[in-house]
Amino acid sequence: MNGAESLIRTARAAGIDVCFANPGTTEMPLVLALDSAPGIRPVLCLFEGVCTGAADGFARMAGRPALTLLHLGPGLANGLANLHNARRAHSPVVNLVGDHATWHLAADAPLAADIEGPARSVSGWVRTSRDARSLGADLADAVAAALRPPGQVSTLIVPLDLQSAPGQLAEVAKPVAPAPPDERRIAAAADALRRGAAALMLGGSALRAEALRAAARIAEATGCRLWAETFPARTERGAGTPRVERFPYFPEQVTSFRAGVERVVLAGARDPVAFFGWPGSSTHLLPEGIERVPLSESGEDSAQALAAVADALSAPPPKQLAPFAPSPRPSGRLDAAALAAAVSALLPEHAVLVDEGATSGAALYAALASAAPHSALSLTGGAIGQGLPCATGAAIACPDRKVISFQADGSGLYTVQALWTQARESLDVTTIVCANRAYRILQVELHRSGVAEPGPAARSLTSLAGPAIDWVSLAQGFGVPATRAEDADGLVRALERALAEPGPRLIEVILG
Amino acid sequence: MNGAESLIRTARAAGIDVCFANPGTTEMPLVLALDSAPGIRPVLCLFEGVCTGAADGFARMAGRPALTLLHLGPGLANGLANLHNARRAHSPVVNLVGDHATWHLAADAPLAADIEGPARSVSGWVRTSRDARSLGADLADAVAAALRPPGQVSTLIVPLDLQSAPGQLAEVAKPVAPAPPDERRIAAAADALRRGAAALMLGGSALRAEALRAAARIAEATGCRLWAETFPARTERGAGTPRVERFPYFPEQVTSFRAGVERVVLAGARDPVAFFGWPGSSTHLLPEGIERVPLSESGEDSAQALAAVADALSAPPPKQLAPFAPSPRPSGRLDAAALAAAVSALLPEHAVLVDEGATSGAALYAALASAAPHSALSLTGGAIGQGLPCATGAAIACPDRKVISFQADGSGLYTVQALWTQARESLDVTTIVCANRAYRILQVELHRSGVAEPGPAARSLTSLAGPAIDWVSLAQGFGVPATRAEDADGLVRALERALAEPGPRLIEVILG
Repeated sequence: MNGAESLIRTARAAGIDVCFANPGTTEMPLVLALDSAPGIRPVLCLFEGVCTGAADGFARMAGRPALTLLHLGPGLANGLANLHNARRAHSPVVNLVGDHATWHLAADAPLAADIEGPARSVSGWVRTSRDARSLGADLADAVAAALRPPGQVSTLIVPLDLQSAPGQLAEVAKPVAPAPPDERRIAAAADALRRGAAALMLGGSALRAEALRAAARIAEATGCRLWAETFPARTERGAGTPRVERFPYFPEQVTSFRAGVERVVLAGARDPVAFFGWPGSSTHLLPEGIERVPLSESGEDSAQALAAVADALSAPPPKQLAPFAPSPRPSGRLDAAALAAAVSALLPEHAVLVDEGATSGAALYAALASAAPHSALSLTGGAIGQGLPCATGAAIACPDRKVISFQADGSGLYTVQALWTQARESLDVTTIVCANRAYRILQVELHRSGVAEPGPAARSLTSLAGPAIDWVSLAQGFGVPATRAEDADGLVRALERALAEPGPRLIEVILG
Repeated sequence: MNGAESLIRTARAAGIDVCFANPGTTEMPLVLALDSAPGIRPVLCLFEGVCTGAADGFARMAGRPALTLLHLGPGLANGLANLHNARRAHSPVVNLVGDHATWHLAADAPLAADIEGPARSVSGWVRTSRDARSLGADLADAVAAALRPPGQVSTLIVPLDLQSAPGQLAEVAKPVAPAPPDERRIAAAADALRRGAAALMLGGSALRAEALRAAARIAEATGCRLWAETFPARTERGAGTPRVERFPYFPEQVTSFRAGVERVVLAGARDPVAFFGWPGSSTHLLPEGIERVPLSESGEDSAQALAAVADALSAPPPKQLAPFAPSPRPSGRLDAAALAAAVSALLPEHAVLVDEGATSGAALYAALASAAPHSALSLTGGAIGQGLPCATGAAIACPDRKVISFQADGSGLYTVQALWTQARESLDVTTIVCANRAYRILQVELHRSGVAEPGPAARSLTSLAGPAIDWVSLAQGFGVPATRAEDADGLVRALERALAEPGPRLIEVILG
């Protein structure tokens, strides 16, 4: 058993069964080990950002890490943006990055570059293996670190020569449970909620099913509002879930949003900060006068904390969960509202909705509140190009659920290669491309900053027209059947057809 | 004048006239400054790796830096792989990376990430601006650093609030000339070459026109062989250039290649090291017994050094330069040899050939030795996905020259979004996709390492079939007219047509 085999066997023993791979010469012993030590499914991606985004999506749905297999520093570099999103999602991910043979490193060969430095910018745990016999143990440590609550990115760098030298299996540690909730904070939160004029702000694991149920009990018992962080890694929504309001993106929206609230209990969520430091705005979105009451942090058991608060309040089981009342099918003109209605009307039960819709997704959140029950994943770290890869990984984690990839056109183009992996693996993903043919958010920013008439550079750098991108051709080029919808009726027909069939489909939705 | 305008005006004063941009909210004042301080052409790219690869290609052909405009840490991360190639090419590139407002940094907002760390992995110069009034001076320093011989990547990080605060223009420094050659090394090199059994190994600026002419004089006077580093940033080839042999990629090819050579004079080239540390192989490709004679290093004036050696040898002007004798047009079966012949037969005079053909390009080097005179750019750093962006930048640098983008299919898929920029800017690029539908180099590596029958994982992770990628659809999706060639006659017809028309074209060449 060589080092590569010991690593792959240890990964399998630690429960890993998928590897999103884009290997090169320095990773070939690891590729061979996937054959000689079977049990881990290799999934080829055409670009490393697809590997890392897929590993993030997989982790959000499966609750366990996948491997990525990346080629030296430049391969890792191509995967960093989606690892940034995974870091913000607290997704457990284990990157394997090959490196030059230890005896070759000093030569500064063409592909040599710093790997640890860039890896540290996204990883909670980084190690370069020093000994072939420790490769199994290094992998076991990488998995344990990735699973440390609330979850993080681990990067293990494996020199080529160590992969081929004799290795040995390693013990796999039992995952650590999240820290139990703090009794005093439970009492303080219950007390604050009893005083009224309160919101319960949910983030991270506090947005998962069990925690949401406890939050619903609390809201019904105290009348508090339930708020969600703006870009959650994963939450459960639709029929049977409580009404949770999404915290606004733009600071100017916060004053009316928070009207009447004097205290905010934070469960798995941070005190909300602005996405950007806009001129004339401030970092913290809630004014100083609002009382913050911390209940649980990201590495703690928010579900247990919320249940304890609900019990302290003697709250009965929730009764006011959302009914199943999706939007009616839209007809006629196709705009963001009609698009949202179509998704609400047709969303399959237990679908996974990956939302990188950007400005086109503004209407979606409200429209899905009473749609079929579903899991919703969002762009946690703001590094665009996460949607298509994330949907790819979610589909591999959940082969029995439809995945809806709700995708802004500009963002989708960063990692469009994900479509090919969806075709190759016959993944049940329906991609809805919101084609407004602009970096619309930047046009909004120009408007917000008072630019009424942008000049030619600003117009050129925020427009995706000239030439318009033909998403149907792109999808077909990658092997995904595709169609275009130019009115709401056409969209409904296309979406019905796509959802009725297994396998990947893409619908380009032309928005005015 | 705000900080952003002072920066853009200073850039213009320093001779910069192109900005390859993929901006976000934190770069909008810089975008607006491109309008209020005109003279720099904004070129939108759909992915940051296209921006950085284009800036590299632009620098190789224009000899001066372009700006890139990138969005925070994740935007820079997406551009790192091609900056790695630019670093290896010694291309002057000036990256502008926006950052959060200084007063917002501590909030750790979703997009916050380390920028300087990853920037240092590819940049010779990194600075985060601290004062709006220094933005112009910071930019001037960035340009001066980028142009410091032999050229390097500069990264300037510009917080959002400083872009909008009052700025001031800065003085632009005169570029520093490369160091003059060392007299003792010139004498030693001439002496070594006189002794015979010598090769003159050329790299970096020693592969440019003037230096090649001096090298030709030396070779004709002494009988030495002329060798080129395997992956030069830029060289001049075809009719009128001397015969220069390309140093082999695989170590096992070196013994016969170097037969009869006892000493190697290094001009702008390093002592050749293996691309990877293969088992049983060694780092240095030439045995210890071969005498190394350093003539010039990468920051020195290799053309002047070679001319001085030629003068010391009293070498007359060269007479044995390559005639114009392109390959005949191929017919029938389409393989790598026929493909190379077609390019040789039809290559326009003074074309720019960007070669990321990988295994499909093996026959190309020999076939182009007597083709029309052209500039050839190659993949300096081994980070694949460089070809299409590099061709894009080269076309912007040289609007009067045809650019031929000779592209392996696997590599091309990393940054396929470059095609859209070619369409938007109506660039005169003909892309030839070598569609062998495999990561063929990895299949070669499996074979070299003795794996006769790869298992399912190794087969899956090295094959791009299932489904075959339809490059014609991809190109059309990005607005580039495209066609497919399945035999040599069809390729010749398609290439003739593409070269006869201005604007971007793509030909997918199906290789067996």
